Amino acid sequence: MRYEELTIEGRNAVLEAFRSGRTVDKLFVQDGCKDGPVLSITREARKHDTVIQYVAKERLDQMSETGRHQGVIAVAAAYSYAAVEDILQAARDKGENPFIFLLDGIEDPHNLGAIIRTANLAGAHGVIIPKHRAAGLTATVARTSAGALNYTPVAKVTNLVQAIESLKKEGMWFVCADMAGELMYRLNLTGPVGLVIGNEGSGVSRLVRESCDMMAAIPMKGNLDSLNASVAAGVLAYEIVRQRLL
Amino acid sequence: MRYEELTIEGRNAVLEAFRSGRTVDKLFVQDGCKDGPVLSITREARKHDTVIQYVAKERLDQMSETGRHQGVIAVAAAYSYAAVEDILQAARDKGENPFIFLLDGIEDPHNLGAIIRTANLAGAHGVIIPKHRAAGLTATVARTSAGALNYTPVAKVTNLVQAIESLKKEGMWFVCADMAGELMYRLNLTGPVGLVIGNEGSGVSRLVRESCDMMAAIPMKGNLDSLNASVAAGVLAYEIVRQRLL
Repeated sequence: MRYEELTIEGRNAVLEAFRSGRTVDKLFVQDGCKDGPVLSITREARKHDTVIQYVAKERLDQMSETGRHQGVIAVAAAYSYAAVEDILQAARDKGENPFIFLLDGIEDPHNLGAIIRTANLAGAHGVIIPKHRAAGLTATVARTSAGALNYTPVAKVTNLVQAIESLKKEGMWFVCADMAGELMYRLNLTGPVGLVIGNEGSGVSRLVRESCDMMAAIPMKGNLDSLNASVAAGVLAYEIVRQRLL
Repeated sequence: MRYEELTIEGRNAVLEAFRSGRTVDKLFVQDGCKDGPVLSITREARKHDTVIQYVAKERLDQMSETGRHQGVIAVAAAYSYAAVEDILQAARDKGENPFIFLLDGIEDPHNLGAIIRTANLAGAHGVIIPKHRAAGLTATVARTSAGALNYTPVAKVTNLVQAIESLKKEGMWFVCADMAGELMYRLNLTGPVGLVIGNEGSGVSRLVRESCDMMAAIPMKGNLDSLNASVAAGVLAYEIVRQRLL
């Protein structure tokens, strides 16, 4: 069910999938579910000529990857990864400096989904993830992204360092989250910027860190070492948003 | 296993429990686990005269609430909720303006844990949660908090609105996350402040919102309505940190 075929679960995620124009091959609805949100979904499905199948709750539970389908599961056409060039083009189309998230090995699908959601809301043009040792775009990711996966392009690359080097030739700067870095408020993050977020346990890997231009530290006033990865991504992304706004 | 007895799972969380001085009644370790992190944990356990029991992986799997015990489960003495007054005292002890998180119905234990972790690192003096319709301090919360639960006091109140009103008499101001509010950068958040975060689905409830002094909006540049609750808490908390630092 990974990569080849994507099940989208939960009411918000399914509705967003239709509204964003994704091709949904089939919609499974729990027998007897007829409340407002479900009716909105079946209306969208009819509008898009999607096959609707009513099934027992047990069947949905069986199909569900997340265990939280809320009575609806959509089977979408294969999720197509974007190319890095598509992300740059999205920035050009908006006349904005590129703003890209690069995830150096995020393993928890809840974190990956939450980060894609943050990327969308912070106005980033896309997300780049590595092929290996990282969560892929599973149903849990789609659901946790709350629909952002339909709008924010995600590109998958074999080698993050190479991707960074080639984006540098396009004029981009790279900043990674690192406790040992400069306090984030003191960095200039207004240009074309790639924000690198490290793995939940081990942080940003050495080679990737060495290819970054800046290391940004989030002020830490407590007893622990680090924020949750998706929270750290949000805090840094919004420092970029703040600097660009003001 | 809720409230009365707390199982702490995962290597970081268990190690932090010992180091922070929590009373651990018993430590379960997976047979044959002898790597560095586990040895550090058993060393701490011996130092604290904690009973260590080596058990088969299957036994740990059975005991585990989170499914991710990493070979160690500690059974701690009952988690004791703090009183609101303890949180205010913590601020006074540090000679700082009180900075408190108030969670208006966070239901997902992963979000609750991540938010307590953020509260710790942002330098907040405590977290207040309501008794009803909200996640309590389960093993999942302890684990997701990455040990923050040992340092950051969490108080539980029957009625959030009453808690807010009585804290106002102590000179505190309250700000809630709300899309319809003022852009967060334009608010003055440097005083004694309570940050109110709403429920994952329905946001801040009406009565709680009406008792807040300010509504803070996070800039939203994408296609969705809202950030993940723990990311939103992080972004707002760090706007408070930024204003207090500069």
